Amino acid sequence: MSAEPPLLQRLVEALRCLPGVGPKSAQRMAFHLLERDREGGRRLAAVLAESMERIGHCQRCRTLSDREVCALCANPNRDDGLLCVVETPTEVLAIEQSTGFKGRYFVLAGACRPRRHRAPRAEPGRPPGPPGRGGGAGADTGHEPDGRGCRDGTLHQRDGQGVWCDGDRIAHGVPLGGELDYVDGGTLAHAFAGRHRIG
Amino acid sequence: MSAEPPLLQRLVEALRCLPGVGPKSAQRMAFHLLERDREGGRRLAAVLAESMERIGHCQRCRTLSDREVCALCANPNRDDGLLCVVETPTEVLAIEQSTGFKGRYFVLAGACRPRRHRAPRAEPGRPPGPPGRGGGAGADTGHEPDGRGCRDGTLHQRDGQGVWCDGDRIAHGVPLGGELDYVDGGTLAHAFAGRHRIG
Repeated sequence: MSAEPPLLQRLVEALRCLPGVGPKSAQRMAFHLLERDREGGRRLAAVLAESMERIGHCQRCRTLSDREVCALCANPNRDDGLLCVVETPTEVLAIEQSTGFKGRYFVLAGACRPRRHRAPRAEPGRPPGPPGRGGGAGADTGHEPDGRGCRDGTLHQRDGQGVWCDGDRIAHGVPLGGELDYVDGGTLAHAFAGRHRIG
Repeated sequence: MSAEPPLLQRLVEALRCLPGVGPKSAQRMAFHLLERDREGGRRLAAVLAESMERIGHCQRCRTLSDREVCALCANPNRDDGLLCVVETPTEVLAIEQSTGFKGRYFVLAGACRPRRHRAPRAEPGRPPGPPGRGGGAGADTGHEPDGRGCRDGTLHQRDGQGVWCDGDRIAHGVPLGGELDYVDGGTLAHAFAGRHRIG
């Protein structure tokens, strides 16, 4: 006979669906909630159940949202002339939290590879708006979904006529305060090649 | 306007009730569940809600249980002549998982200090059973709830007449494979004083 009553055991098991949570952490979490924070546990259960049902993808940029069009896409003050293409909704959040970017986003929601030897597609008749609206997944981004590349956000600028006119990729380099000993060779090579003149 | 829709933000906030989960981890957990494991999230929400309502304390040993009497106390094969007094339900689980102890438990459910200069209380008329059954919290354990001592399980042995006849405290010492450089002085002093002859 086990020391754990069935329900407690099921709670510990259920907590292991969280990333980075092993048997010991799950046990610690279960006991913490039961002994010290039942109210927090109840609130988490309710918000979690609601989130799993109600949060879907924004119909424009495909980031996670509980509305048809997310708050960013619905914001009229964002710059329609700048589009940041990222791989996942997490990256939208990271860029929003750490940069001053005020344009629009498009989430590829899948790995992709830049299409080489191909000019960006000109679509003069298309109304202004991020790529992917009404199109296939990644169809307008000049990327193919096959698992390589695109791990960094890419900035595209449009001329307001629906024609791509410029594209940038965010810089590769060593992290601020990072020690060179711990940086992989590829990153260090990029950082070295992309060096700037001081002053 | 925030990049996070309100519900997603509430989910990240709610996840922070878990011990050791900061803003970054909570965000990672929320996105993981939403993008990769909705079923796990739904199951966690349901088990969590049920656990917060149904799991209480065993009426005999006071460990956490969804039944009036926990599986350990209800097990007739455990040794009634051995009682292990611990501070928290987590310690019951730790001892069950790592030792061969086959006696009963009693959970103090609060810090305590051993009563010095006082003999254990004799209760000849009392039927055999762990202390605390029908008594006040910790009243029969020879401990006072004031926040010191008792952080390790203490073994008490009874003679079957309800009279305490012997008590042990688990050993203090260095962890298996532990390096002496990282052990605090108090623990090292206990380990040194409690050394055993080899062979």
